[in-house]
Amino acid sequence: MPSYTAPTKDIQYVLHEVLNISGSDIPGYSDLEPEFTEAILDAAGQLASDVIAPLNTVGDQEGCTFENGVITTPTGFKEAFEQVKEGGWPGLDLPEEYGGQGLPYLMSTAVGELFSAANQAFTMYQGLTHGAASAILVHGTEEQKATYLPKMTSCEWTGTMNLTEPHCGTDLGLMRTKAEPQDDGSYKITGQKIFISAGDHDMSENVIHLVLAKIPGGPEGIKGVSLFIVPKFNVNADGSVGSSNGVSVGSIEEKMGIHGNSTCVMNYDEANGYLLGEMHKGMRAMFTMMNEARLGVGMQGLAQAEAAYQNAVIYAKDRLQGRAVTGPANPDGPADPLIVHPDIRRTLMDQKSFIEGARAFMLWGANLIDQAHRSGDKEADGLISLMTPVLKGFLTDKGYEATVNAQQVYGGHGYIEEWGMSQFTRDARIAMIYEGANGVQALDLVGRKLALDGGKYVMAFFDMVKGFCKENSNDDMADFVDPLKTASKDLQSAGMFFMQNGMKNPNAALSGSYDFMHLFGYVCLGLMWARMAKVSLAALENGTDDPEFHQNKLTTARYYMARQLPMTGTLLKRIESGADPVMTLPAEAF
Amino acid sequence: MPSYTAPTKDIQYVLHEVLNISGSDIPGYSDLEPEFTEAILDAAGQLASDVIAPLNTVGDQEGCTFENGVITTPTGFKEAFEQVKEGGWPGLDLPEEYGGQGLPYLMSTAVGELFSAANQAFTMYQGLTHGAASAILVHGTEEQKATYLPKMTSCEWTGTMNLTEPHCGTDLGLMRTKAEPQDDGSYKITGQKIFISAGDHDMSENVIHLVLAKIPGGPEGIKGVSLFIVPKFNVNADGSVGSSNGVSVGSIEEKMGIHGNSTCVMNYDEANGYLLGEMHKGMRAMFTMMNEARLGVGMQGLAQAEAAYQNAVIYAKDRLQGRAVTGPANPDGPADPLIVHPDIRRTLMDQKSFIEGARAFMLWGANLIDQAHRSGDKEADGLISLMTPVLKGFLTDKGYEATVNAQQVYGGHGYIEEWGMSQFTRDARIAMIYEGANGVQALDLVGRKLALDGGKYVMAFFDMVKGFCKENSNDDMADFVDPLKTASKDLQSAGMFFMQNGMKNPNAALSGSYDFMHLFGYVCLGLMWARMAKVSLAALENGTDDPEFHQNKLTTARYYMARQLPMTGTLLKRIESGADPVMTLPAEAF
Repeated sequence: MPSYTAPTKDIQYVLHEVLNISGSDIPGYSDLEPEFTEAILDAAGQLASDVIAPLNTVGDQEGCTFENGVITTPTGFKEAFEQVKEGGWPGLDLPEEYGGQGLPYLMSTAVGELFSAANQAFTMYQGLTHGAASAILVHGTEEQKATYLPKMTSCEWTGTMNLTEPHCGTDLGLMRTKAEPQDDGSYKITGQKIFISAGDHDMSENVIHLVLAKIPGGPEGIKGVSLFIVPKFNVNADGSVGSSNGVSVGSIEEKMGIHGNSTCVMNYDEANGYLLGEMHKGMRAMFTMMNEARLGVGMQGLAQAEAAYQNAVIYAKDRLQGRAVTGPANPDGPADPLIVHPDIRRTLMDQKSFIEGARAFMLWGANLIDQAHRSGDKEADGLISLMTPVLKGFLTDKGYEATVNAQQVYGGHGYIEEWGMSQFTRDARIAMIYEGANGVQALDLVGRKLALDGGKYVMAFFDMVKGFCKENSNDDMADFVDPLKTASKDLQSAGMFFMQNGMKNPNAALSGSYDFMHLFGYVCLGLMWARMAKVSLAALENGTDDPEFHQNKLTTARYYMARQLPMTGTLLKRIESGADPVMTLPAEAF
Repeated sequence: MPSYTAPTKDIQYVLHEVLNISGSDIPGYSDLEPEFTEAILDAAGQLASDVIAPLNTVGDQEGCTFENGVITTPTGFKEAFEQVKEGGWPGLDLPEEYGGQGLPYLMSTAVGELFSAANQAFTMYQGLTHGAASAILVHGTEEQKATYLPKMTSCEWTGTMNLTEPHCGTDLGLMRTKAEPQDDGSYKITGQKIFISAGDHDMSENVIHLVLAKIPGGPEGIKGVSLFIVPKFNVNADGSVGSSNGVSVGSIEEKMGIHGNSTCVMNYDEANGYLLGEMHKGMRAMFTMMNEARLGVGMQGLAQAEAAYQNAVIYAKDRLQGRAVTGPANPDGPADPLIVHPDIRRTLMDQKSFIEGARAFMLWGANLIDQAHRSGDKEADGLISLMTPVLKGFLTDKGYEATVNAQQVYGGHGYIEEWGMSQFTRDARIAMIYEGANGVQALDLVGRKLALDGGKYVMAFFDMVKGFCKENSNDDMADFVDPLKTASKDLQSAGMFFMQNGMKNPNAALSGSYDFMHLFGYVCLGLMWARMAKVSLAALENGTDDPEFHQNKLTTARYYMARQLPMTGTLLKRIESGADPVMTLPAEAF
């Protein structure tokens, strides 16, 4: 069975040496001293390794069962969820007035990686709850907040998001679920929603569904969609759980992975619903959840990659097979460990350089969110808005690739379920699809985010990279800054191509949108690696007491620069080939 | 449930317009007139679509069961296998004297794609039998051939290959299975083998295992390995099936995919075994199977990609979601079909341009095998030997990628098992692993095949590409020849880098071996696309009666050149970065 160890040291490095968080003036950050964050990460890491990770295989093998209208989660999930609740983890960054810890989002992200790596399916129950609570926090009335948030902060009640219907996913304007206004100001919700993660289960006393629906007579399409709070059980005036609402599970889906999470078909039959936020402005409210969820999903890509990588490394050091080409490395044994072979190292370095770069990118993103929300910094808000589709799309694509490569290290054993490597790939696969398939992320990036506020944020990003390269144009940094410059020029050329061609032929931009999302991702990780290289060079120069750690960072940075970042050249060529190769073939010829 | 239609027209195009097979002087090829091959492909295609494909989902969902020592294949497999036998398909290219049809290997490859696309797990039962029969055909005594081949040609008896043991896969020198010589010239085989595909089942009256084992007292390591025929049931003097041999199934593996194939742990307990080929030369005999199996596995990559692609296309045309950015394409409907969106087209074009290029490459490879075996052409033999790891490694990596992309077209539905898209990826995944994991293919290519006969065959390949480019340096062909030239130069530069650095530092070559395998693959498909472009340009110029088909070929060729082939630039950069990025990190730092 696979094991998992929290990468606390690496997270601490990013938080304190790269992002220097306790020196930040963001409200709440001054508490985030290294000892404090380490204590949090250690406690979360222990829970992740000892309690949550051992249930990962169990969840995959047992799955959820649905009998007589009741969903049962896999053996041990309920008890483990109680431990998560007792530790106060679900409310780590939620307001203290509702029972949370009030810590920055950054800490919730750092901890989230550990839980998600240990067991993605399990961690989704609290993840969805967090998203729903955030939407209520931002858009709810005081009464709604008082009614739902204390229970959701503690995960006594869990939450869901209900968007998709059988005939519509991305195109929510086609939705059919109806919300009929009632005299008391509430609504009766009727319709069917599918793919509802954590839709129902046996681990909480109530489930608070956030449901998109149309109020009859409203505007057509997406502009007539509103968001509703629809509890599984009606909530009594005293806040206790009351009678059943008109909410039922139609079935649970048989999926490729995340078997431990109950993915439900939800049926609403004149269920009591309560408008959340403004009428017909449901998408805006839903996007509070969606944006958070997209970052969370990007993190799942990183997290599954980390978990799979750890096990691939263990196997590569343990499994004896063949001899090093330069002579036996383990002459007393019957063969050398796999890790002596260059191609095994290549794939492990690929995984490692992605993971550590992605972790820095993810934590930087969370840092920007705190800057936006806690300091009201609009530049930071624009930048993270621009980068959200990149974080989601690039990290889940590359994270999936990493899990596949980790599985490959095991040879035939990687294909046998008993070894657990297949599960990492099957679980990681969903992250490329849900919360907006990655093609939709690319469309969001190129079709909306690039032009946001007149392209202000993408220009700010370019300037940031240029500024960094200029400031660090010394010999020591050349190994990192030169490749970053080349890659950044590729990114700018692609942006230029879109500007010059996108207006007269939008297909020319959209044909390259996916490549652009990846190009952006490679450059972001390149920037992160260059920053880390700078930090580690300085640490070595200043006589750090852990020179190996920093040397290894530099080695991994060099790998990224030499072997990952050059991908930007190919991506640019694809983008510059424009619309014709993609759009010419008649539909009937496919 | 997914459907499957044989791509007969495209196969016919490659056979007759690109390879011009009936004009070849390879013995047996003159019979391969278009009408004849079409009749074969139509018959095989019908069996594939109507009988074999519908069992693909069944096989995945039911899997094989192992109870009281007996393995039962999924519902319908046995009946379908009878139809395959009745049609004489397993012996299509096996000698007429043993009951086969004696057709070229090329036809077996063309038909094999159809069966494999329809149902990989099912088709493996006959695929393994074919491999084992080939080994007996080449290395067996007249008596062995007479005893086993008629029954194996008809698949009344099926075959297996037994290499892997729990502690050794790639490094077979570590094997422990023993073969004790007996007075009558036979051996007693004792040991355990794992991952034995089609190891036992209920669809044939006997199973003929080819088992690698060591005769005590022989040379150490791989040089002391011999190959044995070990039947499940002993064969009586009259050729009938006799008593049980000491062969039993320990268990069947729970795998990520190919559930319909029984992957067995096989236990041999003083089982009667008969030496096949020379003592201690077992690897040579096994490689007769392995080389064939590697091509067959490469084809599985292509086949699963084709099957997944076909279904992605159906969904993309059917599913209404969003509007074309240039204005509604389906104004009377609630939304436009997915296929209007550039990013959906991009991924479908990626799949299509890979599949058609890979098909041409595969059939060209099979053509070379016939040239080598039927015409005794040593150049062809050397060339296909060089390209076997490329066909295996590149086609399975890219084939898997294609299935993942096809699954992605379905959005959330792609993750639900009911829709069948997950199965294509799970089944395709094994092809990257078995018959030598793709990293081992890359090692074989760079470590052995490049230097074969002093590098003669790789030089011949370079000359072939250069010659083609020179001959076709006209304006019409520039769209295809120019990118091919660039890519081919990248490949040659990579070869040059290995020559200059590989001798003094083998790690410098091996660190780039995987990239080189892909680089080679991209160039091979580039050459195929350039050849197809030439053929289709000529067809259009000569007034073909199917201009759309040829126009579409040219469009797809242009896509490949514009968007796939530029990958060679990135791969070359990775290769030229040499050993340092890969080899520097200490093992304990992973």
